[in-house]
Amino acid sequence: MHTISSDIARLCDSIPPADATAARAVQDRLDCLAKPRGSLGALESVLVRLAASSGQLYPTVAPVVILLAAADHGVATEGVSAYPQHITALMVENFLAGGAAIAVLARQTGARLLVVDAGVRGQVPEHPALQRLNIRQGSGNIAREPAMQWHEMLAAVRAGIALVETAHQQGMHLFIPAEMGIGNTTPAAALTSIYTGAPATETVGAGSGLTVAQQQHKQAVVVRALDRAAVSALASPWHVLAELGGLEIAVLVGAILAAAARRVPVLLDGYISTSAALVAAAAAPNVTAHLLAAHCGAEPGHRLALRQLRLDTQHGAPPLLHLNLRLGEGAGAALAVPLLHNGIALLQQMALLDDDPLLDSTP
Amino acid sequence: MHTISSDIARLCDSIPPADATAARAVQDRLDCLAKPRGSLGALESVLVRLAASSGQLYPTVAPVVILLAAADHGVATEGVSAYPQHITALMVENFLAGGAAIAVLARQTGARLLVVDAGVRGQVPEHPALQRLNIRQGSGNIAREPAMQWHEMLAAVRAGIALVETAHQQGMHLFIPAEMGIGNTTPAAALTSIYTGAPATETVGAGSGLTVAQQQHKQAVVVRALDRAAVSALASPWHVLAELGGLEIAVLVGAILAAAARRVPVLLDGYISTSAALVAAAAAPNVTAHLLAAHCGAEPGHRLALRQLRLDTQHGAPPLLHLNLRLGEGAGAALAVPLLHNGIALLQQMALLDDDPLLDSTP
Repeated sequence: MHTISSDIARLCDSIPPADATAARAVQDRLDCLAKPRGSLGALESVLVRLAASSGQLYPTVAPVVILLAAADHGVATEGVSAYPQHITALMVENFLAGGAAIAVLARQTGARLLVVDAGVRGQVPEHPALQRLNIRQGSGNIAREPAMQWHEMLAAVRAGIALVETAHQQGMHLFIPAEMGIGNTTPAAALTSIYTGAPATETVGAGSGLTVAQQQHKQAVVVRALDRAAVSALASPWHVLAELGGLEIAVLVGAILAAAARRVPVLLDGYISTSAALVAAAAAPNVTAHLLAAHCGAEPGHRLALRQLRLDTQHGAPPLLHLNLRLGEGAGAALAVPLLHNGIALLQQMALLDDDPLLDSTP
Repeated sequence: MHTISSDIARLCDSIPPADATAARAVQDRLDCLAKPRGSLGALESVLVRLAASSGQLYPTVAPVVILLAAADHGVATEGVSAYPQHITALMVENFLAGGAAIAVLARQTGARLLVVDAGVRGQVPEHPALQRLNIRQGSGNIAREPAMQWHEMLAAVRAGIALVETAHQQGMHLFIPAEMGIGNTTPAAALTSIYTGAPATETVGAGSGLTVAQQQHKQAVVVRALDRAAVSALASPWHVLAELGGLEIAVLVGAILAAAARRVPVLLDGYISTSAALVAAAAAPNVTAHLLAAHCGAEPGHRLALRQLRLDTQHGAPPLLHLNLRLGEGAGAALAVPLLHNGIALLQQMALLDDDPLLDSTP
């Protein structure tokens, strides 16, 4: 059995816990604004979490960086997706050409979009904005074999770390882990089953458009993958990742760890980025202090994964949007960014009760 | 019994139904964008509704106009609010000074904020941006007497119509009806009970911070108001409004009717603006084609009122945000505006499937 390399272990150990002082200061200020206490609802909890992660009393979220990692999945040959595998490469071209949803939304929100070929099968034309990792073309078919060899997993994780560290040096106050990969709700379901204990019947949904019969088939594929890998939440998360993850998921695991280590809040998008966060949190529990849930998508497993990360109403950290999205690409996270900007503006610009006579009237 | 004046009756008759052609064209375009069909979830339904209301294939929402009508309520003397009545006037000053939540959010979203004293008790200092209606200071205590005399209700409705018609002449592509008034969840609950048939136990919630005992008291006050007024959903909505509404609610009813008549989509905010929409829809059923639900707030009656207006998932028109807000002021609607901007950008800027080889692969 491999043990994780010391560079990655040190990164995990370096991730700070929530800054309780900053969180308290923001909550105190929210309670002093000219409004009924708690009346901004979920916007208040997200502001407190931004402060707890960043350590900043008046957090800023710009510049926002979106790391969009694309890869293929051998398990797509099992018929788990409504789309053929070559769509992944076509969508990468669409990201670079500016016509994909996330390309539009990145422009709208002023976010920087980094597109990474983490292991797409086939040919993606050269493009000045495309970064290629050249680890392998597509993950293994997890129903039959590990997604990655150990060294491939390490290379993908390290690439994610390096990309985020460079982005951080260039300026980044909010990080969005994003992905594209035909078939990647299947590894997401497998990882979510591992870390939530929920069976495949609860972690497999309609994906990008499956019939009920196709969903049942996909559930059976996830069961085969789980039986083959024979790992549990108690195993090394790096072993779980290599067995059941995927190249883009491994990139996002490294990226999430690196952002958390730098106290950059991580705004999770959909099911796949949340499954990467499950692995990162298993490797370094302090990661959860740096996570925000942008939305809860249409996949039922997404809700389970968010709950496992304590990103739900019960833990005072509800997802901001419930738009029934089933897109990925970081689109749901990008759509939530204006809520963060507006929340910060309210925190900074609203009148305080002790500026005016409202103070005497608080019930 | 009064009958409604012919000017208002004509306005109601002039409200157009949904433009099915524009709605279909937008749905067709959404289905051709480079994404799985339906994958933008609630954002797709709101784009279709924007088109159905405005008649525009590529709707724009800027300029956004927020009409914030403030008034007091005699029923506040029954102890139905966590705040004393004089807070209404103080908050109007805060809206004008720029320190209230909606003032911050209007700046953030570039919306025009019109502040109207629809009937605040006590002194609100003169301010160049404040419009005063001078109808009366505060509505009657609906537990004991009508909220307004017939001529007062007419004056408030006509003021709302005139304000929106002027705003429309100056440029308005989205209208947000907003309000402030200590005690105004009580008339909202009474109106919602009338139009949904739900008892006061389901239409009265915690307001801006009531205990359970205080909520039970407030429920009893609403029951007294309903018993006193002895009106039903079958009565003239103008009679219901005069009996159980309030000055700012009457302004918003007129404003919503006028916006709908001009094909300007109306983005509803919280419980009070939604209760005004219930009255407007009773007066002119075509109004519902022009309504969008920005959010579902913390008050349980808000959900019932939205459902009555067919603004829910079952009718393909779910509220965009679920932030558990309990603020009013139009804040929830202002927070939803960036989602509309982003939705429109996706509709206009995303690649089409027939631009690229994705077309051949649609399942």
